Amino acid sequence: MADTNKRNKSIGVFDSGLGGLTVVKALRQQLSHETIVYFGDTARVPYGTKSSETVIRFSRQNARLLMTYDIKMLVVACNTSSSVALNVLRKEFPVPVVGVIEPGAKKAVAVTKNKIIGVIATTATIKSGAYLKAIKRLGKGLKVISQACPLFVPLVEEGWIAQKETISIAKRYLADIMRKKADTLVLGCTHYPLLKKVLQKIVGTKVYLVDSAQEVASEVKGILKKSNLLREKGRPSYRFLVSDEPEHFRKLARRFLGNTDIKVKRVNIF
Amino acid sequence: MADTNKRNKSIGVFDSGLGGLTVVKALRQQLSHETIVYFGDTARVPYGTKSSETVIRFSRQNARLLMTYDIKMLVVACNTSSSVALNVLRKEFPVPVVGVIEPGAKKAVAVTKNKIIGVIATTATIKSGAYLKAIKRLGKGLKVISQACPLFVPLVEEGWIAQKETISIAKRYLADIMRKKADTLVLGCTHYPLLKKVLQKIVGTKVYLVDSAQEVASEVKGILKKSNLLREKGRPSYRFLVSDEPEHFRKLARRFLGNTDIKVKRVNIF
Repeated sequence: MADTNKRNKSIGVFDSGLGGLTVVKALRQQLSHETIVYFGDTARVPYGTKSSETVIRFSRQNARLLMTYDIKMLVVACNTSSSVALNVLRKEFPVPVVGVIEPGAKKAVAVTKNKIIGVIATTATIKSGAYLKAIKRLGKGLKVISQACPLFVPLVEEGWIAQKETISIAKRYLADIMRKKADTLVLGCTHYPLLKKVLQKIVGTKVYLVDSAQEVASEVKGILKKSNLLREKGRPSYRFLVSDEPEHFRKLARRFLGNTDIKVKRVNIF
Repeated sequence: MADTNKRNKSIGVFDSGLGGLTVVKALRQQLSHETIVYFGDTARVPYGTKSSETVIRFSRQNARLLMTYDIKMLVVACNTSSSVALNVLRKEFPVPVVGVIEPGAKKAVAVTKNKIIGVIATTATIKSGAYLKAIKRLGKGLKVISQACPLFVPLVEEGWIAQKETISIAKRYLADIMRKKADTLVLGCTHYPLLKKVLQKIVGTKVYLVDSAQEVASEVKGILKKSNLLREKGRPSYRFLVSDEPEHFRKLARRFLGNTDIKVKRVNIF
């Protein structure tokens, strides 16, 4: 009985804004009975241009908020938070904490053939070296080419996902990675999958694009199984919390998740 | 004596980030004995893509912080805050509050010949209609063409102030304003003066660009004089507070303000 109660607890997920919805979508596909509480820090987005000290502080506040919903596990869907705050969160909170870096790195190492991996992400993520370290830990002789793409987030947020300026900016950002012949490209920010078409066109169909959402969901499933916390029956439910006004988020969440019953509530955490 | 004490108090200035430095520069030029306390909310920047409810909440917190420095006057250097929060701040705080909308609108109305005024600003500022209302209040028969330019702030923050993509994006944003033959263009965001060269090239030399910093400084001077609060002797001093790490701000402030002795401190207000 106690175990059932534990299994029925929610998975907590946070992101700096909307991008983490790609992770929620993957979680729903792979874990169809889980209930999810999501927090999007839409009032303070973006995180990727801010200092690690600030991102750690925000991440801690977000985790604290989700803990009040009695979660059984915490998923940090934001690459920037995962890069700089994961260890702090693991130390301070009494639930398993999964980030998005490790699963993305694993996938990249698994698929690369020529051992040259490109990583694109926010300035803060690249600066942290988190992907570089994670990839180097996973294998020898791997070459990593990192590129910060700070204009991608605002372009995606504006819906400029295929404009000629977006393509031109993407070409500039990707030039070095292509010149160095990477055969694998890690999309190291939850916003970037929305640019997948444009990016694939620029790098060519032979380069594999790693979108970590599915890998994250697999990792979450594995951990829940191992700890006997997987919820294997019952209706799932999704609760969304945001720090700015909920309307914009609601629309986007509907587009992302389809017909799901979506409740979005504004919370003040600062 | 009491009056001297009052006059020796500081002017408080806040902005969502760095942009307000243009206002500080103008204040220093016109009010050479005043001491200034500036707060840049660099941890939560930008404001222009967020809801008015959130911007009001942030503005109130910023004003409260500056009040603890015993200021004699509050300058809201952020256009977005000025658009949505000015009335709230005027009601709640016991010092004169000056925004950047009114001074910019006045200047535009004073210089336009054909009575067609273009306004470019953040999404939140345009949505608020603040410039439109301010300009319409100042004269009859004035036509206002408003355009949100949400990508300008990230472009400026990245230092992309003359790249071909920036020019291309600017051309798109300005197309409607040019087609409608505005002879005056209000730069309704403190970041935009940094794009002045590119913007002037696109609209042509016959279009007058209104950068409100100098107008704001004149208004501040007028109010201080009238209330007998102008500090007419003594060394000025500048104190800067930021919510994210101070290093980046320090460098930029030095570039903006020259050799001034610049102290930047990080504060946690949330």
